[in-house]
Amino acid sequence: MTKKSFPLSKVYGLLEPGPVVMLTTARSGHPNIMTLSWHTMIEFEPPIVGCVISNRNHSFELLKATNECVINIPTVEIVEKVVGCGNSSGANIDKFKMFSLTAKPAEQVGAPLIDECFANLECRVIDTDMVAKYCLFVFEVIKAWIDPTVKDPQTIHHLGSGNFMIAGERIKLKSKMK
Amino acid sequence: MTKKSFPLSKVYGLLEPGPVVMLTTARSGHPNIMTLSWHTMIEFEPPIVGCVISNRNHSFELLKATNECVINIPTVEIVEKVVGCGNSSGANIDKFKMFSLTAKPAEQVGAPLIDECFANLECRVIDTDMVAKYCLFVFEVIKAWIDPTVKDPQTIHHLGSGNFMIAGERIKLKSKMK
Repeated sequence: MTKKSFPLSKVYGLLEPGPVVMLTTARSGHPNIMTLSWHTMIEFEPPIVGCVISNRNHSFELLKATNECVINIPTVEIVEKVVGCGNSSGANIDKFKMFSLTAKPAEQVGAPLIDECFANLECRVIDTDMVAKYCLFVFEVIKAWIDPTVKDPQTIHHLGSGNFMIAGERIKLKSKMK
Repeated sequence: MTKKSFPLSKVYGLLEPGPVVMLTTARSGHPNIMTLSWHTMIEFEPPIVGCVISNRNHSFELLKATNECVINIPTVEIVEKVVGCGNSSGANIDKFKMFSLTAKPAEQVGAPLIDECFANLECRVIDTDMVAKYCLFVFEVIKAWIDPTVKDPQTIHHLGSGNFMIAGERIKLKSKMK
């Protein structure tokens, strides 16, 4: 699909609602995908994101070695692939092949974009001070992409143990909050 | 409403989907409420939560002074109150009075529970190492409460600028993920 550049100032609105994301990394031409929900915005602009990645995950070592990743945001259309990636380890398999996902080159980082996701955020690790204690990486989003044809993305939200909530109705209220 | 004790081992499932929450604090008998979405789970059990609270907020000082708070999770039924709390500062007003919310005493902390929220998580600040750099507080949830009559809570998820998504359909997939 054809993605458009997305303003960095609006990235927080993609992650703040708390979707399940697919984090991609790559080393020596071998890409990996990890499914996770433990992320938070830390700053609006430049967009800074905190992300907990257990050291039991293959992606932990890839991230430590490369300091780069892409946060890809899936919708319910590919939920089987999202859960499949969460159920398997990239130490043994190529998840792009296994789950028929398309790796597209990123612009700023070595990790690939997952084409089937409606949004892709290219990230650099900017702070590892909290990795030893909490496995918490701090990323700066340096380039963002969006599929302009997706209007109200049906993002997936994990309730635990394979139970998911799908993004529902949209409402707007008068708010002073950014 | 009558709340029941909720197992600490299941708390992650309440926060992982990314709902807007109302954080309560209290000092010298004066309670405050702050609306926020920038939180992430850090550990399953005991449940550890990271939460970004800007130092421009009244709650920042209350939290630094008391090291205690309650994370209250609202549903769409009270979204006007949730946004009202986000649009105002507790430096000038009593938000419980202003928005007709009911403060109930917590069991373990001095901050009150918001009775109208379907879940309440009593928290202690356990790490302030990241407050200076990122306004990121680390909480341990030490007691959790739930309204057992609420089955599929219609939580609120902020998309930015007063746009919200309401929790939609539930699905279950076979998952090895906790």
